[in-house]
Amino acid sequence: METLPGVAPPEQQNTYYYVGQHETKRTVPVTTELGNQAQDAGYDMMTRPITSPGFQARVLALVEAYFEAVSASSNANAVPYPLVAPLTPEDTNLVPDEYISTMICCTSTWIDLASPDPVIAHVSRQVFNHEVAYAAFCGVNNIMIQGPNLETSSVISQYARAIWHSLEVGPYINLQILLPMQPTESKAADHGLSLAGRARDSFKTLKSIATDALWSWDTWELIRSTCKYHSRLAIALEIPQKLPSSAIQSRWFSEPLRTLVIPESTFVQNAKGFPVLNKPVQALLTKYMRLKTVPWIILSDVGPIPGQDHPGMPVNLTDRSASPDLPTPAQSKRKQQTQKPKDLTPHLSYIRHLQRTQPPRPIIDRFAAGYQDYLQSPLQPLTDNLESITYEVFEKDPIKYEWYERAVAAALTDLHKKLQRPIVVAVVGAGRGPLVTRCLKASASTGIPVKQWAVEKNPNAYVLLQRRNATDPLWNKRVTVVKTDMRAWKGPLIDDTPQKVDILVSELLGSFADNELSPECLDGVQHVLDPEHGVSIPTSYTAHFTPLAHPKIYADLYGRSGDAEAHKWELPYVTLLHQYDNLCLDTASGEPDIQTAWEFTHPLPEAILAQSKLRRGGSVQAGGSGMVGGDGWNEHNARFCKLRFTASTRGVCHGLGGYFETVLYIPEDKTKKPIELSINPNTMDAKSKDMISWFPIFFPLKTPVTIPTNAEIEVSMWRQTDDRKVWYEWQVEVFASLGGVRQRVGCSDLHSSIRNGCLM
Amino acid sequence: METLPGVAPPEQQNTYYYVGQHETKRTVPVTTELGNQAQDAGYDMMTRPITSPGFQARVLALVEAYFEAVSASSNANAVPYPLVAPLTPEDTNLVPDEYISTMICCTSTWIDLASPDPVIAHVSRQVFNHEVAYAAFCGVNNIMIQGPNLETSSVISQYARAIWHSLEVGPYINLQILLPMQPTESKAADHGLSLAGRARDSFKTLKSIATDALWSWDTWELIRSTCKYHSRLAIALEIPQKLPSSAIQSRWFSEPLRTLVIPESTFVQNAKGFPVLNKPVQALLTKYMRLKTVPWIILSDVGPIPGQDHPGMPVNLTDRSASPDLPTPAQSKRKQQTQKPKDLTPHLSYIRHLQRTQPPRPIIDRFAAGYQDYLQSPLQPLTDNLESITYEVFEKDPIKYEWYERAVAAALTDLHKKLQRPIVVAVVGAGRGPLVTRCLKASASTGIPVKQWAVEKNPNAYVLLQRRNATDPLWNKRVTVVKTDMRAWKGPLIDDTPQKVDILVSELLGSFADNELSPECLDGVQHVLDPEHGVSIPTSYTAHFTPLAHPKIYADLYGRSGDAEAHKWELPYVTLLHQYDNLCLDTASGEPDIQTAWEFTHPLPEAILAQSKLRRGGSVQAGGSGMVGGDGWNEHNARFCKLRFTASTRGVCHGLGGYFETVLYIPEDKTKKPIELSINPNTMDAKSKDMISWFPIFFPLKTPVTIPTNAEIEVSMWRQTDDRKVWYEWQVEVFASLGGVRQRVGCSDLHSSIRNGCLM
Repeated sequence: METLPGVAPPEQQNTYYYVGQHETKRTVPVTTELGNQAQDAGYDMMTRPITSPGFQARVLALVEAYFEAVSASSNANAVPYPLVAPLTPEDTNLVPDEYISTMICCTSTWIDLASPDPVIAHVSRQVFNHEVAYAAFCGVNNIMIQGPNLETSSVISQYARAIWHSLEVGPYINLQILLPMQPTESKAADHGLSLAGRARDSFKTLKSIATDALWSWDTWELIRSTCKYHSRLAIALEIPQKLPSSAIQSRWFSEPLRTLVIPESTFVQNAKGFPVLNKPVQALLTKYMRLKTVPWIILSDVGPIPGQDHPGMPVNLTDRSASPDLPTPAQSKRKQQTQKPKDLTPHLSYIRHLQRTQPPRPIIDRFAAGYQDYLQSPLQPLTDNLESITYEVFEKDPIKYEWYERAVAAALTDLHKKLQRPIVVAVVGAGRGPLVTRCLKASASTGIPVKQWAVEKNPNAYVLLQRRNATDPLWNKRVTVVKTDMRAWKGPLIDDTPQKVDILVSELLGSFADNELSPECLDGVQHVLDPEHGVSIPTSYTAHFTPLAHPKIYADLYGRSGDAEAHKWELPYVTLLHQYDNLCLDTASGEPDIQTAWEFTHPLPEAILAQSKLRRGGSVQAGGSGMVGGDGWNEHNARFCKLRFTASTRGVCHGLGGYFETVLYIPEDKTKKPIELSINPNTMDAKSKDMISWFPIFFPLKTPVTIPTNAEIEVSMWRQTDDRKVWYEWQVEVFASLGGVRQRVGCSDLHSSIRNGCLM
Repeated sequence: METLPGVAPPEQQNTYYYVGQHETKRTVPVTTELGNQAQDAGYDMMTRPITSPGFQARVLALVEAYFEAVSASSNANAVPYPLVAPLTPEDTNLVPDEYISTMICCTSTWIDLASPDPVIAHVSRQVFNHEVAYAAFCGVNNIMIQGPNLETSSVISQYARAIWHSLEVGPYINLQILLPMQPTESKAADHGLSLAGRARDSFKTLKSIATDALWSWDTWELIRSTCKYHSRLAIALEIPQKLPSSAIQSRWFSEPLRTLVIPESTFVQNAKGFPVLNKPVQALLTKYMRLKTVPWIILSDVGPIPGQDHPGMPVNLTDRSASPDLPTPAQSKRKQQTQKPKDLTPHLSYIRHLQRTQPPRPIIDRFAAGYQDYLQSPLQPLTDNLESITYEVFEKDPIKYEWYERAVAAALTDLHKKLQRPIVVAVVGAGRGPLVTRCLKASASTGIPVKQWAVEKNPNAYVLLQRRNATDPLWNKRVTVVKTDMRAWKGPLIDDTPQKVDILVSELLGSFADNELSPECLDGVQHVLDPEHGVSIPTSYTAHFTPLAHPKIYADLYGRSGDAEAHKWELPYVTLLHQYDNLCLDTASGEPDIQTAWEFTHPLPEAILAQSKLRRGGSVQAGGSGMVGGDGWNEHNARFCKLRFTASTRGVCHGLGGYFETVLYIPEDKTKKPIELSINPNTMDAKSKDMISWFPIFFPLKTPVTIPTNAEIEVSMWRQTDDRKVWYEWQVEVFASLGGVRQRVGCSDLHSSIRNGCLM
């Protein structure tokens, strides 16, 4: 069964880009007036500092005074730490005005919460706490906080705790940590006026300095882990002109990007002298702006708000009705001739241009808008009866039924050569009948006559099947509709004579292939299939998975509470995986390393089914030689695998992404390819492109597992059964070589979905 | 305040050793008769296999048949896996008889639950499950299970899951996994008859082979983690003749050792030809047998049960009334002359000898029997009033009060030189008065007169103080007893004139020094102390900690459930740390690397106290230049530290062991040492040996943190205060170098005891 949302795909709509303006050092105070001017200029928002330069000067003076007092004193411990007084009106011009909720307030960038010097850290915390508390009081919704300086700061845990504390201070306030994509040269210009530069050398012992390109992400990882993946904590990511590796780009994609900050230095000049972004940055922007939660864009230091030096005076911003696209030579000439004023916000214009010329989104995005990373409990169609709308939604898939028809047609062709008679075809789990229709169409297109059965246990769908048989011109009352659980079906009766089925058609697959108990169902109905030549469509299916970083799903699950959520980590979820990062890439192809867990084939060899029968009901005859058995009649459907993956880049694993593939039919004519369906990202386009029915599945981990550089991830996965139900168990181990010894460096719980097992 | 248990130390009692007999291949079936003979021979218990050699032969034949069928078949998948039939009476002679609960049943050692060959693993599981289920049915209490073969086995997760499953099968059954202290050569003799040897080579791809001496412990670590530190899962540890490193010995000490298995090969022959254990093994045994849960001892393959080949006949076992100690030459001669039969169980006799000649246990063991690893919530004497019995127990410490008396005497001497007048001494937090008594004694021994005050907030203790003053000959009505919280005390009045205190004596320390709010109390009473020469006893105290492996405490906490336990991980516990392993040893001394977190000194410098006063009540006067303040009057008592440790041996960290030290007084006469108390294991013997009052403190981690080889452990610890209460926060980060990059490989939650903060 599939998981298609019940809405028709909307038309292609361009995402609106919310763009804001930021200056690292504003030269004018931010006022309501300035807010108006920013809005007039076409910006959707702007940033503002919380405190004034005067406040900064006072605090720096306070720290200087402390250091002098310490030098002058015989006992440094006798000098109280500098005490930053509560804010006065001179320190801040922030007031609860009409723009308060449209502005992103910035805490001071000249503090250093992570300073190894306890006095600097202490003063920084006071400044930070004053600013956050006051902003929260005023009703500010969004605060941007300078990330720790990755070159000089060292005590990230101290920084992280300050962030954690501030989240508790304001229950409605959203925080974004401003971070670069990878560590960069620190801006020397700031040091003179920053507290970081004043840390005393004697305290610089515990430096945790940036060690590689991932250190910025690593810093974020500690901060958000300390803050327990708080829903009000996100990132403002600074996009550089020269992008980091694609691994780092995709890593950030999986993190909560609230804002993309594009500084002036990221822009380049095109031939006409206009600021534009190079192609790699454009591609990154396109990718990031397709996130379900669309990031804001902040342009930083791209020039003042037009008119800001002349508050109150109207500003001629350019002819905004003209296209901001790059002007043609003719346009340029015309522009010169009419002497229009130049574009005062060319960077903004360029972003609007990108917004208008976005490439179209893939079809799946349009179909599934709203469903990205939305967790659904897997269907249990064996125990539950589906509703008509569910069937209706499934039936919209343009590929799946087409492929089934091709498979049936090929099977009919192959069998008819052998049997030279009408072929007995049964669709088990017929639902509202779409597969029956396709069987009849295959019969028509091949010209091979069929005797058609449709078996369905859902008494409600059964009503529709009967009606369809009576009214559908193609069905034409030719279909024998049987209401029964397929496992109890005795098989077709033709003139009261039991008949074997030649082709058994079913579509009982879940996102992890066997998770809706297709094996158990088909085993149960296999007895109706002709033991010599009987064909099952599908003939086999496989489950696949790969380790993923998925902080969004982890945060989602972490935040759920209540009795109903007691086992939230202990079951897989069907979801359209979206904001994740593949941890293990195939070294040759660069594709995600998605490995095969196990396979089921149909029909089963007779000997296996025979042993299963013996074990039904646990009957044993004491003594004697013939009978042997016990419990475990479904044990042949248990599975285990232990797969080893290699981490491409260090990171954190939040769970496993699961997929399936199925071979519907392998034509005897070897010039024809097998007919297959797949939602495995590596093969889906080749095997069944544009099939939209199934979402992937996700097996969560209760505690994220750290994956160090070059680590090997070994995943144990079980499909368990106790003859009454089927469930999964999964465990992740991480191995690395240290000190010449390969050792386990991490391990997850053994998770078990037994409490949410699929009942047989 | 301290944590001394309320019972007098019992007399030295030797621990009784429960000793059992085991044979890896029993030659006779285990019957009630044999159980009797074992008991007669002096054994307390014995082991028995669950199934018979005939059963083993049948299963091996089954597997052979399967392999033959696969070879003969064109489709290996069509051959059903071998099915092990339910047990018949030929397969087992285990019945619920009178000895059923005294015997340790052993599952088959010839299976391989961790086999990489799925058929071998499958068959092994069937055998194992049959055996465990039947034993549980019979009422067996203890099952010993062969650990995975560390050389050949590879799928430990599969093994672990089988153990986990069997724990669920029998709700009362205790399992012990038989493991060597470190990987050893596999016993080639077994392979011929074992399933392990039959694993097909094609399946040996995912070998997780032993990589270093810790691999056996590492295997245990995965098994018990998978089984969530289950309380019914323990270890049977095989003790070799040549012991592994002391690091590995101490690592096993911290694990749940249910049984120590001593095979015959571990014994050596002494000069007289008797089997004895070498000195290192004796020392190990002494250490392990002092565990709170005393391990059983199983002697393995040391010879048959006397008389087992002649069931029903009485056996002359030796003259058991004679001492089993090594006979003197005279005794030997006498023995020969009387032709006494030789000792049929010399190994058992030797163990009894060791039992009788155990070295005496340390005094702390005797005082604190029953309190090892017993978790107590820290006292809150500031908010709670203690009961008299609590005071009584504290007062039994032979060292602490002696040291206080010495400190007071030294302070009196130094001050009297300066002041040449009676010294004003105040004991704040006087309790039932023991410190007051010691002050008076110090006055008597030095001949220096004192004016003595006793301040106590506990209205009940106040009654006793007054009574004591009236009746105690030493007190002799000289003491001024004041009932007040010391922070509200205005100071001594002499002839209605306020007087300053010369010596302020207090004992407000907790196991982590400041955790009973000594700083807050002493700050509050500091104003009564003479600002020029006033002395505080203690003058300073420091908190210390080190990372520990402590699976026992972790399992204890993990198992607690219910609303009351919602924050069980978020508070420190006072406990007599017992079954733990130090993860970080000083490379030079080999002692645990216990580092200093922070320090408090008294009295505080005036400037600090003055700033604190300004901040009381958060009062600020707008404008003006003089007054500045706000909240945070206790902020000077906040503390932060970030300490770096290096792991000596890889392992798992379950929390931090915390201790304190205090300097009571530093005599001006520098030839005299400072008078100090300490529960820091590295300094306690040098500073205050035999002081029994305080137990250590333990800060737990909610999730154990893996510590790889050579990892650096960085611990951030905060003492937080919000002017109403004081609490702690702690977080552990783990760093290692991989691929040339130093990176964080693990991180704990940020724990906070704010919900259990100490109210001021």
